[in-house]
Amino acid sequence: MTADTAFALDPRLAAECRVVGDAALSRVLLMDDARFPWLILVPRRADLRELVELARDEQSALLDEINRVAHVLRALHKPDKLNIAALGNVVAQLHVHVIARHVNDAAWPRPVWGVGTREPYTAPAFAARLKALRTALHLAEPAA
Amino acid sequence: MTADTAFALDPRLAAECRVVGDAALSRVLLMDDARFPWLILVPRRADLRELVELARDEQSALLDEINRVAHVLRALHKPDKLNIAALGNVVAQLHVHVIARHVNDAAWPRPVWGVGTREPYTAPAFAARLKALRTALHLAEPAA
Repeated sequence: MTADTAFALDPRLAAECRVVGDAALSRVLLMDDARFPWLILVPRRADLRELVELARDEQSALLDEINRVAHVLRALHKPDKLNIAALGNVVAQLHVHVIARHVNDAAWPRPVWGVGTREPYTAPAFAARLKALRTALHLAEPAA
Repeated sequence: MTADTAFALDPRLAAECRVVGDAALSRVLLMDDARFPWLILVPRRADLRELVELARDEQSALLDEINRVAHVLRALHKPDKLNIAALGNVVAQLHVHVIARHVNDAAWPRPVWGVGTREPYTAPAFAARLKALRTALHLAEPAA
């Protein structure tokens, strides 16, 4: 599976997240919000807005990557519930949130979007989280 | 694909939605909220909470049904964006929201959950909407 050379990550996602690495189809992002273990999958296809615009075989690849990310979040964070969502009202570029939720987290039982203020990780905590995710997901750190 | 005989729709979903019909895997529901064209897919499997607990072939069937529902919502409502989400913080039974969003709707650009108060359809509007969906989705009205 080859990525579109015209793919560019939405600037808002780039500003709020760090790249974990590239899976076969998706760029895997970690949201810089220490309140929630929160990954985002962005299929590396240019000008893509809706899940239903993705070819069916690529939807299947995306589903595989959602499963992989979800299993890793479950193993690392023992969530009470996973939230999986493609919304895109603010950032139109197709991206799928996979969030490990706990009954004592800052937004429970509400969805996380728009609740309170993002709380960036400390630099060491962010580095440690990224390293753990890269190991669990078998993803290489992207070239700078 | 045969449904679990032990499957029972969560009572909260049953209270807030009307059944459009049964697709191969999922019960298709219409949320009784005239503010948003809002369908919910509930795989007819007992004791299911997470997408990742569903067998991979059934995940693929669910993805097919999400596509089908999404295409019908696009055809009927010309949304500016689709929101597709499996959250389950309040109702744990696995259910997938597929919502047609418009930039002038009651919650835009926020997600719909927890925004304002549900506005039930009038009886004729609800009946008309259900009929249109059953026709478009080729689903039979469920036995009472």
